[in-house]
Amino acid sequence: MNIPVSVFSQVQADIQAVESLMLAQTNEQHPDLQAALELIVKSGGKRIRPTITLLVGHMLEAPQDKLVTLAAAIELLHTATLIHDDLIDGSLLRRGMPTLNAQWSPGSTILTGDFVFARAAKLAADAESIPVMKIFSQTLATIVNGEITQLFSGHCQTERDNYYSRIYAKTASLFETSAWTAALISPAEEKTINSMKNYGYKIGMAFQIIDDILDFTGDPETIGKPVGGDLRQGLLTLPGLYYIEDHAQEPEVLQILQGDCPSSDELNCLVEKICASKSITKAHSEACRFIEQARVHLESQPPSSERHSLETLASFIVDRDL
Amino acid sequence: MNIPVSVFSQVQADIQAVESLMLAQTNEQHPDLQAALELIVKSGGKRIRPTITLLVGHMLEAPQDKLVTLAAAIELLHTATLIHDDLIDGSLLRRGMPTLNAQWSPGSTILTGDFVFARAAKLAADAESIPVMKIFSQTLATIVNGEITQLFSGHCQTERDNYYSRIYAKTASLFETSAWTAALISPAEEKTINSMKNYGYKIGMAFQIIDDILDFTGDPETIGKPVGGDLRQGLLTLPGLYYIEDHAQEPEVLQILQGDCPSSDELNCLVEKICASKSITKAHSEACRFIEQARVHLESQPPSSERHSLETLASFIVDRDL
Repeated sequence: MNIPVSVFSQVQADIQAVESLMLAQTNEQHPDLQAALELIVKSGGKRIRPTITLLVGHMLEAPQDKLVTLAAAIELLHTATLIHDDLIDGSLLRRGMPTLNAQWSPGSTILTGDFVFARAAKLAADAESIPVMKIFSQTLATIVNGEITQLFSGHCQTERDNYYSRIYAKTASLFETSAWTAALISPAEEKTINSMKNYGYKIGMAFQIIDDILDFTGDPETIGKPVGGDLRQGLLTLPGLYYIEDHAQEPEVLQILQGDCPSSDELNCLVEKICASKSITKAHSEACRFIEQARVHLESQPPSSERHSLETLASFIVDRDL
Repeated sequence: MNIPVSVFSQVQADIQAVESLMLAQTNEQHPDLQAALELIVKSGGKRIRPTITLLVGHMLEAPQDKLVTLAAAIELLHTATLIHDDLIDGSLLRRGMPTLNAQWSPGSTILTGDFVFARAAKLAADAESIPVMKIFSQTLATIVNGEITQLFSGHCQTERDNYYSRIYAKTASLFETSAWTAALISPAEEKTINSMKNYGYKIGMAFQIIDDILDFTGDPETIGKPVGGDLRQGLLTLPGLYYIEDHAQEPEVLQILQGDCPSSDELNCLVEKICASKSITKAHSEACRFIEQARVHLESQPPSSERHSLETLASFIVDRDL
């Protein structure tokens, strides 16, 4: 997925400033650390989180300097979590580029992640807002607690509430923070700040649901994982949860409901059945509901090119190739 | 080393409040995470950093709530760095207790460290001071950059300047922050704030020099490492650096000065020679100089029981058993 051109062109110059600020965080540090961060920043990513921060901030007339600083803080926080995640998962590629842990020792990778956390916190502090700092550290705690919970919980969690908590921690919390903190540093009223928080939350939930659908329907080459990779690892996402609810009598499903994980052959078979079922469409409808709700939170804002881009961005999230 | 009773009794109640606040950071989180943090907090430590924060803050009439919060933030930051350090070094024991990585997977240990970082940042934000947040994140960056530099630098660095940079990053930076931030949340003048910053810096430098001396002279059972453990791993500390300066013609020393690391037999022999040399006393005198300078930074303060305890603490750092 790339951000739509009309949206991207609106923030392009600022995104370049964000990337420069991210890169500047290793100035005067150890050259290897500098090289590592350069590699990570230049390998890119969609920059969807800082794009949200910039659009919300511009719409609400946030001060430009602080807005760029905040957007860089958010993208660096995201980057730091990815560095540790890739190490923990043993992932050797991200966005087609070798991960840091594919090239460095575990120790250097852990410390680089820690350094990026420190710089994210520094930039967040540079936005000079106590509420922003509190939300920022809470978001990191939410993301990490979500990962710990996933590590320690049994496989094949079958409750939809559990799924929503998981994707909030994993994805929606930082989307929420991206929009919320941009509003907080703007001269906006509390009602508007809350609307932006909700907008970020809703599109974050939709974004992760779509990611989870793409795990079943996407091109394995593009997403870099085999079809149904999550389920094969015992991770039930929304399409699988709908399938279980609708087919509670099937033997593999019964097994899962009884707390056992099916064999790998049975899981392969289940992945095929899910792909061919209505569960994919149901999950997509759920993502669309989140997006509709997100758009409602923009309605109280006067028309502007930024509001239009935030609407476009919301729609685009569910219109990605399925 | 335990903090002198007279000093400890003055902060005992507050230290208990600090520990309760540290423990409260995992409330409503995953039970395993809660158990892990409980184990870490209860396994103790000298609490020397929060003791400094509390004494400086009380001396300068900092608000009590914020002071306890700040002290907990500083001890949690220290704790988080130890969690990752023990994992990176493969240390299985700390303070006689099994480390987290001795019991948990690397992934869980990394994430627990990250969670503790997040909570440290949250508590630092709760102190509601932007300058404190900036110093706090800068300190984490300094500590981590120091570790990365040590990982990537060749062994047997022979410059004393390099040694001072290393121990600043490793230890003195957080001691400095412990005293400095306590002054910053107090109604103190800039000159006093600077004096406290310097006091923290100087005792931190002395503290690490004494630790490095104890690596040669301490009881291996008490410090949990063989005598000269650092040097055997290629890490030159102040006693070794003085020895090299004074014995530049010895074959092992020449080897080190030419950038090669001696064999393990040669290193054993060098450790014995350093222990029997005047280098230990010279290093101790250097630590005493730092402590004298630290005490000077307290002189502008009116006499108080806290000032007296800060003086006692400074002296105690260099009077530990050699």
